[in-house]
Amino acid sequence: MAQTPKNIAIIGSGLVGSLLAIYLRRIGHQITVFDRRSDIRTIKFSGRSINLAMSNRGWRSLDEVGIGDRIKDLAIPLDKRAMHVNDKPMYFQKYGKDGEAIWSISRGILNKRMIDLAEEEGAVFRFNEKVWDVDLPEAKIYTGETEKSEWKEYQFDKIFGCDGAFSRVRHKMQRRSRFNYSQNFIDVGYKELTIPANEDGTHKLDKNSFHIWPRGEFMLIAMPNIDGSFTCSLFLPFEGEVSFESIKTEDQAREFFKKYFPNVRKEIEDLTKDFFINPTSAMVTMKCYPWTYWDKVALVGDSAHAIVPFYGQGMNAGFEDIYILNQLMEKHGDDWETIFSEYQEERKPNADAIAELSYRNFVEMSSKTADPKFILQKKIEKHFAARHPEKWVPVYSRVTFSDRPYAEALAIGDMQEGIMKKVMQLPNIEERWDSKEVEDKILELLTDQ
Amino acid sequence: MAQTPKNIAIIGSGLVGSLLAIYLRRIGHQITVFDRRSDIRTIKFSGRSINLAMSNRGWRSLDEVGIGDRIKDLAIPLDKRAMHVNDKPMYFQKYGKDGEAIWSISRGILNKRMIDLAEEEGAVFRFNEKVWDVDLPEAKIYTGETEKSEWKEYQFDKIFGCDGAFSRVRHKMQRRSRFNYSQNFIDVGYKELTIPANEDGTHKLDKNSFHIWPRGEFMLIAMPNIDGSFTCSLFLPFEGEVSFESIKTEDQAREFFKKYFPNVRKEIEDLTKDFFINPTSAMVTMKCYPWTYWDKVALVGDSAHAIVPFYGQGMNAGFEDIYILNQLMEKHGDDWETIFSEYQEERKPNADAIAELSYRNFVEMSSKTADPKFILQKKIEKHFAARHPEKWVPVYSRVTFSDRPYAEALAIGDMQEGIMKKVMQLPNIEERWDSKEVEDKILELLTDQ
Repeated sequence: MAQTPKNIAIIGSGLVGSLLAIYLRRIGHQITVFDRRSDIRTIKFSGRSINLAMSNRGWRSLDEVGIGDRIKDLAIPLDKRAMHVNDKPMYFQKYGKDGEAIWSISRGILNKRMIDLAEEEGAVFRFNEKVWDVDLPEAKIYTGETEKSEWKEYQFDKIFGCDGAFSRVRHKMQRRSRFNYSQNFIDVGYKELTIPANEDGTHKLDKNSFHIWPRGEFMLIAMPNIDGSFTCSLFLPFEGEVSFESIKTEDQAREFFKKYFPNVRKEIEDLTKDFFINPTSAMVTMKCYPWTYWDKVALVGDSAHAIVPFYGQGMNAGFEDIYILNQLMEKHGDDWETIFSEYQEERKPNADAIAELSYRNFVEMSSKTADPKFILQKKIEKHFAARHPEKWVPVYSRVTFSDRPYAEALAIGDMQEGIMKKVMQLPNIEERWDSKEVEDKILELLTDQ
Repeated sequence: MAQTPKNIAIIGSGLVGSLLAIYLRRIGHQITVFDRRSDIRTIKFSGRSINLAMSNRGWRSLDEVGIGDRIKDLAIPLDKRAMHVNDKPMYFQKYGKDGEAIWSISRGILNKRMIDLAEEEGAVFRFNEKVWDVDLPEAKIYTGETEKSEWKEYQFDKIFGCDGAFSRVRHKMQRRSRFNYSQNFIDVGYKELTIPANEDGTHKLDKNSFHIWPRGEFMLIAMPNIDGSFTCSLFLPFEGEVSFESIKTEDQAREFFKKYFPNVRKEIEDLTKDFFINPTSAMVTMKCYPWTYWDKVALVGDSAHAIVPFYGQGMNAGFEDIYILNQLMEKHGDDWETIFSEYQEERKPNADAIAELSYRNFVEMSSKTADPKFILQKKIEKHFAARHPEKWVPVYSRVTFSDRPYAEALAIGDMQEGIMKKVMQLPNIEERWDSKEVEDKILELLTDQ
């Protein structure tokens, strides 16, 4: 069903805001995008981002409006993890089947391109304009220099809050009664570091891998950029024996890398300087409900469901919000009340599911990777999946290489976990993990589901 | 250890704010209490409160500063529930042992007395003065007519946020990184109604009982006031077949009471009028952490841990915060950093525990009271507790008639629940619930703990 063109404000010119602008322009809506910050195309992008991993859900959302190819040239496919375990040669873990990959993109570079594309479609961007208040029932926004300065009033038909985890639009909704909300920070922070390109512009490490240096309570990761560099993220507890708090001097930083990351240390140029120049960032899981206010206001992306980055799905989930919203707009035309209510009902359980999966991945990485039982369990799962690929699709693949709902991936993952719990209790499982009996036992347990 | 007198601001002149003012004045601190609302002693108290149930923790906190007796004359002891089940004569359930009671007090009347007492101690109250911003590291507050009007700046040594579930002080803390926060509303609302006194000033129902009309998904409760009236609270889902949403006209309200509360209907004067004049209030569980900012700012009471009212512990928990804080002030003298950090570390798990217990009571009341298995389990517990009072103290008594930590009550309650789960699985438990074998089984399971 066609929609009557509306005058729509999008708050936030990040990835989700820009993509939503493109979708809504295609339908014919008049779009103004507000951002409190400067045009990212005119400034040096700040060093506080983990590189993004675009996977199936992200590409599908870009392809739907035909811009996938305009983004792909900014991205590098990663078809495997490169594991850098101490005292062991580096080894690879393939992500999925042949041809399956996640794509590394720098947030800054992607965001610039997305804004270019949205402008090409006719969206109007108003940078450096801070939204301080939103009149939800009237769809009015108020902008100004400061919270206390004189404000300018804008009247719109609809407002989309794409202003991220600390959304001002949501903040306004949150002050209303019966608005559920939570923000939970994890005790681990991260810091961006850089491995520059070789002098000839090539990558210093395998460029088609997601590099991980797991160290139990902390880890370093590196993802390639198209200019030959790698963006690294050091994940480390804020407090404790080995922590950001405990590294106060350049000497301590050097010592830390020498001890725990001896092989990568030389690659990170200006290591100790970067360590103290770049900020230490916190990570939060943010949930809320409802996501919409009548037929006037809707939250999309991180403003509705910020997650920790350990599944690489934050941007993909936000883009999928838009994909689903678009399906509902096509289905319900001008019935925005139905569009918004079905949007939040359909997306909320999936956002909760990917939040849970991302948090579990954090727990898994920080506390389980060294547990022999956990390693054995993963080995059995892999062994079985290789023999019965149609019967055992790992959760990672369901999340990353599929477009089935996140909630389904979580549910099937829990079912698989239940089966593995029983399998791990089999006597002498350590010796006969790859035996026919164990395989048959899993098959039998799968049939019981 | 003695404390050096400080200049302290308390934000909020509610029950917790006034009691904290009394405690701090006793130590010799200079106290200014700010409240955005008018002096409650000069206005008619609004009809949106459930009567309060003062129990052990509350009394202990009042007695510590010698004001228990000044409050007791405002309260009526309730030693039992009066159950009004449809098609059954009313029956009583004793709360505890002889002499154990909870005390019904009107929030408005109590708050007025508390402010009087705090003024007697020398606390200065600034009513109708709205705090809009707080400078946490500098302990400054900013007040003014509106958020955008000119503000007045005050400098203090410490600030206590006693400004309730929607605390402005916490709101300021919440915008900082690594502040965990959640607000979760339940789908049930409540509305205040009144049963007036008889013409001779006596109570229309037994005055020493907490009256309950349980109806599955909803219920009515009534608590006595010293003027002979009862304050009633109708708890009802916001939406659904029988809900606040479904009662739109006076006819529908009359029909609702006729059908579900035929016996109490006549007692509630102006029933249908009150129903539409009084607001429908929402109930929230609010959790956050940290509760303090360095040695400058601390949250006390609902601002730190708002809970649903189904355990009657909201005020008691807030008063206990103050009791514990006072112990820590006595212990650590001028070391406010230690006082604040031990305060939040000690109170947080207990606040979480009473939040959980209160929420469980809500679930129990709304969905389990009609379940025959649940009723049988409670019967077995009661039977066993009567025979072995020293071995089985019910959670309700641990929360209400004890001053042991809430977290301990929750843990022991979970242990008891684990035992009862096993007991309920015994074959033919319905027939032999009061047999010697069942009793021995419980004793055996208790020994295993």
